[in-house]
Amino acid sequence: MSAVFFCIDVGRGYTPPLQSPDVAMPAKELTIDTIEAAARRLRGVVRHTPLLEAPLLNDRLGGRVLIKAECLQLTGSFKFRGAYSKLSQLEPAEREKGVVAYSSGNHAQGVAAAARLFGVPATIVMPSTAPEIKRRNTRAYGARVVEYDPATEVRERIGDRLSAETGAVLVRPYDDFEVMAGQGTAGLEAVRQCRELGVHPDQALCPCGGGGLVAGFSTAIRHYHPDVAVYAVEPTGFDDTARSLDAGERLANAPGGRSICDAIVTPMPGELTFEVNRSTLAGGLAVSDREVLEAMRCAFEFFKIVVEPGGAVALAALLSGRLEARGKTSIVVCSGGNVDPGIFARCLQ
Amino acid sequence: MSAVFFCIDVGRGYTPPLQSPDVAMPAKELTIDTIEAAARRLRGVVRHTPLLEAPLLNDRLGGRVLIKAECLQLTGSFKFRGAYSKLSQLEPAEREKGVVAYSSGNHAQGVAAAARLFGVPATIVMPSTAPEIKRRNTRAYGARVVEYDPATEVRERIGDRLSAETGAVLVRPYDDFEVMAGQGTAGLEAVRQCRELGVHPDQALCPCGGGGLVAGFSTAIRHYHPDVAVYAVEPTGFDDTARSLDAGERLANAPGGRSICDAIVTPMPGELTFEVNRSTLAGGLAVSDREVLEAMRCAFEFFKIVVEPGGAVALAALLSGRLEARGKTSIVVCSGGNVDPGIFARCLQ
Repeated sequence: MSAVFFCIDVGRGYTPPLQSPDVAMPAKELTIDTIEAAARRLRGVVRHTPLLEAPLLNDRLGGRVLIKAECLQLTGSFKFRGAYSKLSQLEPAEREKGVVAYSSGNHAQGVAAAARLFGVPATIVMPSTAPEIKRRNTRAYGARVVEYDPATEVRERIGDRLSAETGAVLVRPYDDFEVMAGQGTAGLEAVRQCRELGVHPDQALCPCGGGGLVAGFSTAIRHYHPDVAVYAVEPTGFDDTARSLDAGERLANAPGGRSICDAIVTPMPGELTFEVNRSTLAGGLAVSDREVLEAMRCAFEFFKIVVEPGGAVALAALLSGRLEARGKTSIVVCSGGNVDPGIFARCLQ
Repeated sequence: MSAVFFCIDVGRGYTPPLQSPDVAMPAKELTIDTIEAAARRLRGVVRHTPLLEAPLLNDRLGGRVLIKAECLQLTGSFKFRGAYSKLSQLEPAEREKGVVAYSSGNHAQGVAAAARLFGVPATIVMPSTAPEIKRRNTRAYGARVVEYDPATEVRERIGDRLSAETGAVLVRPYDDFEVMAGQGTAGLEAVRQCRELGVHPDQALCPCGGGGLVAGFSTAIRHYHPDVAVYAVEPTGFDDTARSLDAGERLANAPGGRSICDAIVTPMPGELTFEVNRSTLAGGLAVSDREVLEAMRCAFEFFKIVVEPGGAVALAALLSGRLEARGKTSIVVCSGGNVDPGIFARCLQ
C-alpha cells in the first residue's frame, strides 16, 4: 500500500448501509443529495481533477471549451469515484467477504484501488481482449483477475456466479445508485470550478457507455444549471443511449460492431441509468474512430493530457461539429487515459 | 483574444515599476516577498497546476513521488508565470513600445500569451530548429517571430538589437528577478499543496536550463521547508549548473553537445540565477536522452500527462536512481509539455 493512502481514516463518515451482506442493493434513487453525500465520503481520497482550458483552441472553435480532465483521476479514470463511493457504503461484515466486479478495465482498476484502500479482497472479471495497461494495473492494485473470452462468454453471468459462490458483493459498473452518485461528484466539482472562473456553461458533453457517468454528471450539473444541455456521446455503432433517448425506451446495439473505444462499448443502456438519463439529457451524439483519434491528438497538443479512445468521444463530438461550439461555453468530460502506447501512437501520426 | 482572458482586470494590483522604458532592469533580488508579490499579480490569470501522484509508481519506487505538472500550465509550460510576472510590472508607457524576447520556444509562448493579455506587441527571436509546435503556437498568440540560425547567429545579440531599434522591453528568459519570482509561484503552490496533503517533502527535483525556474522554485520551497534538498537536473553534456555548483563559479558547456531536451540546452548558468542557486541548491544531476524518453513514457503511463524532453529530466533523474527515491517523499517538477508528435512517439516505442 502506498503512502498516499496512509492518511485516510476509513472509519470516518460512513452512513449505515441498507444492503444485505451478499447483494449489492442500490440506494433508492440518484439525487443531488446522494451525490453530495458521496462527495463527503470521497473527500481527501478522490483527486479534484482540473478544468483545463486552451486559449488557442478557443480561438479556433470560436467558443470556450472547458475540459474536465478525469484522465488525471487516481487509477486514470473517473471510475474510482463510483467504486469508492460504493465500497464506502458497505458494512464491515460485507467487506470481509470481498467484492467482485466485471469490467473492460477502468471500473476494474477503480474497484481494485478502492478495495485496496479498504483492505478488501477483490476479484475482477475482465475480457482477455482488454488493453494490457488495464489488466496489468488491476493486478498491480492487488486484485485477482479472472479473464474471459467476450466472444463466447457473458461477463454478468461470471460475476453473478462468483458473487454467489463466495458471498462477495457485486459492484456493478453503472447500474447502481451509489456508483452513479460517486461519478456525479465529477459534476459537482465542475460546477464549483465554473463558479470560481465566473462562467456559466451553455452545454456539456460526456462520454457514455452504460450511462453511469453521464447520469451522475448531468444530475449534478443540471441541479445548479437547469438550463445547461447535457449530451451523452458514444462511438458509432454503439449509440444505444442516443437511439434509446429518441425512442423513449431502452434499445440494444446491433451485434458485431467494432470500435477502438474499448471502455464504452456496452450492449445497451443500464436500466437504472436510463431512467435518470431520459430525464436529464438533451440527447445523444455518435462519433467515428477517426474523429476519436483526432480528439486524442487535440488533447495531446492543446491540453497536454493523455486521453484514451473511449475518454475522448465527447471532445470528438465538439471538434467534429456534431454540436456547435461557436459562441458557447462547453464543458467536455475527458473520462479516462488508460491507453496502450501502440493505440496512442496512432493519434500522433 | 479568447474568453478566458476577458475576466482579467489588468489594471489591478500593479507595483509602480522601477525600470527605465527601454531596459529590462530587474528588481534588486529574489526573495519570498517578491515571489509572494508575483503570486498576487498572477492570481486569477495563472493556472494552479495539480500535484499528481500515482500509487502504483510509489509502490515501484518504494517512496512517494509528487509531480508538479507545469505542462498543464497555460501555454504548456511554467514560462507563462515568469513572463506575466514581468509584463505586469511594466509601466503603460513601456508596454506601448512592445516587448522582445529570445527563446527556444517555451518562454516565447509565455511572453506571447502574456503580451496578448496586455494588448502589447511582442517580437520573439526563435531558432529555426525549434519544435514546430512552439513556433506555430508563438505565432498563434499573435507574436511576430524572427527566426535565426543557431549555428551561426547569437540570439542575445539579435534580441538586444531589436530592443535598441524599437525601444521594446527585452524580457530575458531567466536572468531577471521578476521572471524568477514568477517561476517561483510554482513552488509556492507546491508548498500549499503539500500542506493540504499533510505531507512534508524530503527532496525536490527541478529541470534546469538557465536556472530561472529552479531559482524561484527552490527559494519558495526552502523558505517553508529549509531542510528540503533541492536539485537542478540537466541533460548530459549540458550540466553547466551541476559543474558550476561544484566549482563554485559559473562554467560553460563544451560546444557541440547534442540533446533532445531543446528547452534547456543553455550555454551556461545565468549570472543572477547562479547567485541564487549556489545558495539554495543541494546539487545538480544529469540524465541521458534515453533516460528522458523513459521518463516521458512513465509520465504517459502513470500520470496521463504529456511531458516534453526538457520537462522530463527531473523525473528521469529519480527513475534512473540518480537520487534515491526509496523511503522518501520527492517533489518532481515536470516543467513543460510542448513536444512534436514525432518525438513523443519515440517514448512510446
